[in-house]
Amino acid sequence: MSLLVVGSVAFDNVETPKGKVEDALGGSALYFSASSSMFTDVRLVAVVGDDFPDEPVNFLKGRGVDLSGLHQVEGKTFRWEGRYGADLNEAETLATHLNVFGDFKPVLSEEYRKSEYVFLANIDPCLQRDVLDQVESPKFVALDTMNFWIDSKLDSLKETLKRIDMLVINDGEARSLGGDNNVVRAARNILKMGPRFLVIKRGEYGALLFDGEEFAFAPAFPLEEVFDPTGAGDTFAGGMMGYIANKDSVSPEILRQAMVMGCTMASFDVEDFSFNAMRNLTHPQINGRLNAFRNLIHCTDFASPGKA
Amino acid sequence: MSLLVVGSVAFDNVETPKGKVEDALGGSALYFSASSSMFTDVRLVAVVGDDFPDEPVNFLKGRGVDLSGLHQVEGKTFRWEGRYGADLNEAETLATHLNVFGDFKPVLSEEYRKSEYVFLANIDPCLQRDVLDQVESPKFVALDTMNFWIDSKLDSLKETLKRIDMLVINDGEARSLGGDNNVVRAARNILKMGPRFLVIKRGEYGALLFDGEEFAFAPAFPLEEVFDPTGAGDTFAGGMMGYIANKDSVSPEILRQAMVMGCTMASFDVEDFSFNAMRNLTHPQINGRLNAFRNLIHCTDFASPGKA
Repeated sequence: MSLLVVGSVAFDNVETPKGKVEDALGGSALYFSASSSMFTDVRLVAVVGDDFPDEPVNFLKGRGVDLSGLHQVEGKTFRWEGRYGADLNEAETLATHLNVFGDFKPVLSEEYRKSEYVFLANIDPCLQRDVLDQVESPKFVALDTMNFWIDSKLDSLKETLKRIDMLVINDGEARSLGGDNNVVRAARNILKMGPRFLVIKRGEYGALLFDGEEFAFAPAFPLEEVFDPTGAGDTFAGGMMGYIANKDSVSPEILRQAMVMGCTMASFDVEDFSFNAMRNLTHPQINGRLNAFRNLIHCTDFASPGKA
Repeated sequence: MSLLVVGSVAFDNVETPKGKVEDALGGSALYFSASSSMFTDVRLVAVVGDDFPDEPVNFLKGRGVDLSGLHQVEGKTFRWEGRYGADLNEAETLATHLNVFGDFKPVLSEEYRKSEYVFLANIDPCLQRDVLDQVESPKFVALDTMNFWIDSKLDSLKETLKRIDMLVINDGEARSLGGDNNVVRAARNILKMGPRFLVIKRGEYGALLFDGEEFAFAPAFPLEEVFDPTGAGDTFAGGMMGYIANKDSVSPEILRQAMVMGCTMASFDVEDFSFNAMRNLTHPQINGRLNAFRNLIHCTDFASPGKA
């Protein structure tokens, strides 16, 4: 099934304890597409400047991503500069240069408007609604956001939340948006704002899915070498939405599998800078890690034994 | 099988966002016994002052705990004062009054010396070795410690680690003892110090078990109301060691089940102050939460689908 992603394409300057990269390819839409295109046909909407190279465009085309929605305009591409300390769970943003992204107004082609699955990456909630206005009859819409919008445009964000099916945010964002430090109560509060499903990303601790009645949990894969967590959240969302679009289902079973797939894809992403780990990834490699995931949480059924 | 615990019995003054308790019953050995005695015969070694009441002693006796090793001496019982902020994962210690615990020298009776399973709660690593010198031929020894000993008595701690089977510590302690912020590398480094197994407690994020080759993971149960995290780690260890002693096995399967049991018992503990949640806990209640745990991490097998 067709999967539309609207978000950023960027150059990143990133420093982690493992090293430093400049002008690395990044942005939510790139990470999301590189991941989700393993599973389904992806349509990308974003804007880049005239400094953006052909190589990543050709790579994604080779993966079957429709890039007719990637608009190239005069000026410089969006740039993010960030640093990770010993705690790789959170980046310190050193600089954000919106550049051509500052005037981003997503316009969808006739074909894009017929998309069935939609992922609205972290952009202004008002733009996210603009996109939704253009999609004719989406089957399932997922959305990411960040503390910046929760703090500065809460009312606009709440308008958008009424129109989506699944919100995908991190732990701190969930506590902030839900107005409660307890993640269960925060999750309940968030679902009252509109979405049917909430996914909470917890970095190296995994992810939680809440449908208003019960929680499902998937761990992060314990990795010996984490090079760069940049894009892990969008790679996770790409794995999850790509799997959902592939299966054309949001049954409880498919959603749980999709979350495990999201964690799996994210576990590859962080093993290299930029989305390099996605470039040569194969389905047998993905299956290998899915097996390792299964083993990680495997526990045979048992009951409380009482005293022997 | 017999399970020996050596640790503290204390009065706690605890403040959490949910309320405040003074003179609450606490200490590692009390929490551990209240939990593990659901599954096996427990022998407790600790010291209290002449201000310690009979009620908790009678409660534990009713659970079949052997308290002949609980020495009552002149003076005041160990007292801990702590506070939890909105982040319930870490306590701020406001005061520690060792009182009679300052002269604690564990001496084991003939019967205690024949104990098969041993849990050395968080005390001076030198005292932990003293206990091990007295136990004739333990089948399995688990140990807890804390940053205070890692920072101030590392050599002594390392001597003790050579003689134990399983170390049970929290995330921060593992990173500190293992000398690496990456939990996988830290875990490898720790196993080189002696233990065959390492369990890393991660508060609301669950627990990891590492045997040198592979990791097993158990989540913490998402709870709507967390009243008091005090003792959660010892309650976890009690559930884990109690289950192991009950099964008289440390097979990979039993260890994984034991860790899930540890998380289950800890999830009850935090729902009330002190170890009150342990007092009327029943095996059907435990089984109910074990089922909820299973459901939390349940995911049917699936493979990477490739593009549809």
